[in-house]
Amino acid sequence: MSSSLALDALIDALKCLPGVGQKSAQRMALHLIERDQAGARQLANTTLEALEKVSHCVYCRNFADTEICRICADQKRDNSLLCIVETPTDVLAIEASGAYRGLYFVLLGRLSPLDGYGPEELGLEALEARFKQADVCEVILATSATVEGDITAQFIADIAARYELGTSRLARGIPLGGELEYVDSGTLSRALSGRQQYQG
Amino acid sequence: MSSSLALDALIDALKCLPGVGQKSAQRMALHLIERDQAGARQLANTTLEALEKVSHCVYCRNFADTEICRICADQKRDNSLLCIVETPTDVLAIEASGAYRGLYFVLLGRLSPLDGYGPEELGLEALEARFKQADVCEVILATSATVEGDITAQFIADIAARYELGTSRLARGIPLGGELEYVDSGTLSRALSGRQQYQG
Repeated sequence: MSSSLALDALIDALKCLPGVGQKSAQRMALHLIERDQAGARQLANTTLEALEKVSHCVYCRNFADTEICRICADQKRDNSLLCIVETPTDVLAIEASGAYRGLYFVLLGRLSPLDGYGPEELGLEALEARFKQADVCEVILATSATVEGDITAQFIADIAARYELGTSRLARGIPLGGELEYVDSGTLSRALSGRQQYQG
Repeated sequence: MSSSLALDALIDALKCLPGVGQKSAQRMALHLIERDQAGARQLANTTLEALEKVSHCVYCRNFADTEICRICADQKRDNSLLCIVETPTDVLAIEASGAYRGLYFVLLGRLSPLDGYGPEELGLEALEARFKQADVCEVILATSATVEGDITAQFIADIAARYELGTSRLARGIPLGGELEYVDSGTLSRALSGRQQYQG
C-alpha cells in the first residue's frame, strides 16, 4: 500500500518513459515532489505545450513548431546540400557535430516492406519533388549502416540519378579513438578498401 | 540548431529528472512526441495533479493526498507497531516486502547537525506526542545502517525509553542469496555476533 494515490499515479505515468521501470519511476517521482517542484511544473507545462505545438515540417518531415521547421526556414543554410536521414534523432546528432550547414530530409523510417515501410511511408514522393527544384545539387545519403539502411540509400540514389544529382554516402571506417584490436572485421575491411592518401 | 523550440524546451525540462542527461532526455522527448502522446499527456496531467494534491500526512509525515495518509487512515493496520524510517522511499520498500502491517513515522532525514538536521527538522516532537498515546507498544527503528542512522536510532530509543516502550532495530546480517566470499567484513562480523538458534 502506498500513502498517496496521486503519487502512485505519477510513478505509473513516469513508467511510460523509455528505460524507466518501477524503481527509477519511484526515484523520479519522489525527486520531483520532494526536491524540484518548479522543475516538475516546468516539465508538465512544456510537455503539454510540445504536444500541442509540435508537428512535422512540410519540407523535411522533421519536427517543427510551425509549418516549416527552424532549419528549413533558416536563410543562412546552404540549400544546395540535402542530407537524407532516418529519424529526427539523426538530425540532432549531425547538428551536434557542427560539421554540416545544409538542409535535411527525414524519412521517419527506412525501407522495410515486411514492417509496412514502403516508399510512400518514407515520403519519397515529397523527396522527389525536392529533387526537381533547381537548388539541390548534392544528396548526402546518411541512412544507417545496416542492410535496410543501405537498401534505402540505394533506392534514393536511383531516384536522384534521374535528376542528375550528385550523391554521396557517409564515410565508413574506424571511429575516432578506436583501437584496431577492438574494431570488428567488417568495419576494418571497409576502412582498408576506403583508405585515403596520407596528408601529414 | 534544432528544428523545434518546443521540443528543445521539453528536452531541457526532462533533464530535471535524476539520472537523465542530454542524450536520455532527447530519447525520452522523441519517444513521448513520436510514439506515446497519450502517455505524455497522462504524465503532464498526473504531475500537475500530484503537485497540487500531495502534501505531508499530519500523523506520519509521509506523502498524502489528504490531511491523513492512506496508511494512517487504514483501520486494518496494527496501530501498536510504529516503524521509524528516514524517507518516503523507505516506506515504499518496506510495503513492497509485505512483511509489515503496522504504522510508520517518516523523519524526512536523519540527525546530522552539520547539515542542519536537528530533532526539530525530524519532527521528533510530533513523534514524542505519538509515544504518549496509549496505542503504541513497540517502536521499530528502521533508520539506515550508517553512523548517522545509528545515532538517530539511539536518540529516538532514548525518547521511547522515557515512555517505557519496547524498541527494536532491523536485523543486520547476510542478504538473501549473498555469498560469504563477497560479503564485507563488517556485515560478516554483525552476522556472527547476531547468529540465531538453528531451526531446521
